[in-house]
Amino acid sequence: MKWQDRRLLDLFGIEHPIIQAPMAGPTTPQMAIAASKAGALGSLAAAMLTPDLLRAELQTVRQHTDRPINVNFFCHTPPVVDAGREAGWRKRLARYYDQLGLPASAADGGAVRMPYGAAMGELLLEFRPKVASFHFGLPEEGLLKPLRAAGILILSSATTVEEACWLEARGVDAVIAQGAEAGGHRGMFLTDDIASQPGTMALVPQVVDAVKVPVIAAGGIADGRGVAAALALGAAGVQVGTAFLLTPEARTSAVHRAALKSRTADVTALTNVFTGRPARGVVNLIMREVGPIAPEAPSFPLAAGAATPLRVAGEAKGSGDFSPLWSGQSAVLAREMPAGEVVASLVAQTGVALRRVQG
Amino acid sequence: MKWQDRRLLDLFGIEHPIIQAPMAGPTTPQMAIAASKAGALGSLAAAMLTPDLLRAELQTVRQHTDRPINVNFFCHTPPVVDAGREAGWRKRLARYYDQLGLPASAADGGAVRMPYGAAMGELLLEFRPKVASFHFGLPEEGLLKPLRAAGILILSSATTVEEACWLEARGVDAVIAQGAEAGGHRGMFLTDDIASQPGTMALVPQVVDAVKVPVIAAGGIADGRGVAAALALGAAGVQVGTAFLLTPEARTSAVHRAALKSRTADVTALTNVFTGRPARGVVNLIMREVGPIAPEAPSFPLAAGAATPLRVAGEAKGSGDFSPLWSGQSAVLAREMPAGEVVASLVAQTGVALRRVQG
Repeated sequence: MKWQDRRLLDLFGIEHPIIQAPMAGPTTPQMAIAASKAGALGSLAAAMLTPDLLRAELQTVRQHTDRPINVNFFCHTPPVVDAGREAGWRKRLARYYDQLGLPASAADGGAVRMPYGAAMGELLLEFRPKVASFHFGLPEEGLLKPLRAAGILILSSATTVEEACWLEARGVDAVIAQGAEAGGHRGMFLTDDIASQPGTMALVPQVVDAVKVPVIAAGGIADGRGVAAALALGAAGVQVGTAFLLTPEARTSAVHRAALKSRTADVTALTNVFTGRPARGVVNLIMREVGPIAPEAPSFPLAAGAATPLRVAGEAKGSGDFSPLWSGQSAVLAREMPAGEVVASLVAQTGVALRRVQG
Repeated sequence: MKWQDRRLLDLFGIEHPIIQAPMAGPTTPQMAIAASKAGALGSLAAAMLTPDLLRAELQTVRQHTDRPINVNFFCHTPPVVDAGREAGWRKRLARYYDQLGLPASAADGGAVRMPYGAAMGELLLEFRPKVASFHFGLPEEGLLKPLRAAGILILSSATTVEEACWLEARGVDAVIAQGAEAGGHRGMFLTDDIASQPGTMALVPQVVDAVKVPVIAAGGIADGRGVAAALALGAAGVQVGTAFLLTPEARTSAVHRAALKSRTADVTALTNVFTGRPARGVVNLIMREVGPIAPEAPSFPLAAGAATPLRVAGEAKGSGDFSPLWSGQSAVLAREMPAGEVVASLVAQTGVALRRVQG
């Protein structure tokens, strides 16, 4: 496959304009290694890792490849705990605690969702990945400067044209235009209006017109037809997540895999019941009964405190009723194959799709 | 422009695989004539017309062109009036009636939104348009049979894979895959779950995989990049609406045009406040304050009974606060030019977009 638009290939030093999306939870070093070896930009997802765990993942990657990789961080403002809100949320979920025989005080086992900070910055300067990407905006300039000085490229996601312009003004090297189809957390940071979030088909060309940096399309792209479409819209490349969730390299749980392969995998919604922030997943019991948007959920990531024990207890019984089943709207197009083959398939299918429209 | 996929060109007898979307209200015979003369499939929107008015529009079209055209109908089940619900809705809107100095009993002036029926069928058999398209499913088989016997092709919109399969099983000649980006009424008829409606990028390839008939992509497509992207996704063609709203041929009101050209034209949402069914428009005061989804709104189209007087009174004062400002998510890409030039631009831009990705 000869890519006409070489902007991302030259910027990142990769063979194909495809980023394996960082997905906190399912993404593993093995996924990133396989994606990078296949010529894409492999990504690690640091959002739920301590610095020590991220160090271990970076070491694993470096033992297997010196190809460019991306490390992704959340950069939300840490919330202030509101005791009344916490109590209300526990109360809202109490009947499920009863059903699962959980004590009312059960805690989430300490999964961290810390925003990017100095400790992570030191790791980046030590390992020097080619790219650092952020979700929910950008960290303050003081934290970005050392990365830039070290030659680390900086990306972030925009869900609106306004967010894309904000990111460009702050010096990102490329913008990920995250259409409403995308799975997992919406990267939105200048708006909290999920009703107005544009789909990929609408968002990408408008962002392309609004910024000068390369635009990476995300959301609903799970095979080569989507890659070809994104390029036609003017994107320099794509970020693909859901298509990697069924790979053997993915740490996708059994209930999550089952949901992605189910007949109703195309029934997804944005929900805040798992973390407090809108994220797209396959609709399940807790989303239907408590959400999909629960106004009473505590701020991100505090809602997870009371929601995660339900997930753990449910999964112990083989149930995904309380699990975040993150997925974009194209899970139906995902295949069970190694991550490297996902990249190779995307590349081959893109060629087929482009030749089909050109004759 | 040489189109590789000739399915729609051969099926409809047109030059370009583009349908000018029927938009009840803004669409005029002049728009359909111009689109058809430019080689697209021009459409009339019958949903808000009496048979006499539709007859007049069909006569106008036939005076100017014998090219293929499409006539679009709603085919909802007429609602049962619920007096309590009606009273509740009037009460919900009462403060706006007060603000605008409207009597509480003001009525909507009798705009009809009648489902397709026998009288319209007779008109179709008399004028024999090439295509009849439906929104909200299909009329009963007894009403379709005479159309088929007369050689009139039948289309309808699907917002999910399930709806596409349902339509194919009932013999449509092509399916319009209406992604969530689309303006105006969602064609949804097997689900009322707007949270799960897929975007165009996700919906089109899944529908293409699920049905054998040609798939027409709709939603967020307002320039040639979108057309090229839709073709890459496997669509046989596109239906484009919003891009025609700023044409001189469009009966788009002054407040509507202003909204489409405003800085916040990309802030749209699905709302039921104007008719009782979810439809996408630029967010305005009544959507923000009463909706965007008002659970208390009467069933389609009854909500319009109390909402339309507000629109009329508001527009008389130059305000679009109470007007349905229907728009897809790509109004920013729409240009003020004649409808025939919109078609020509779409064609030319598609060629540019396809050449750009191919080199």
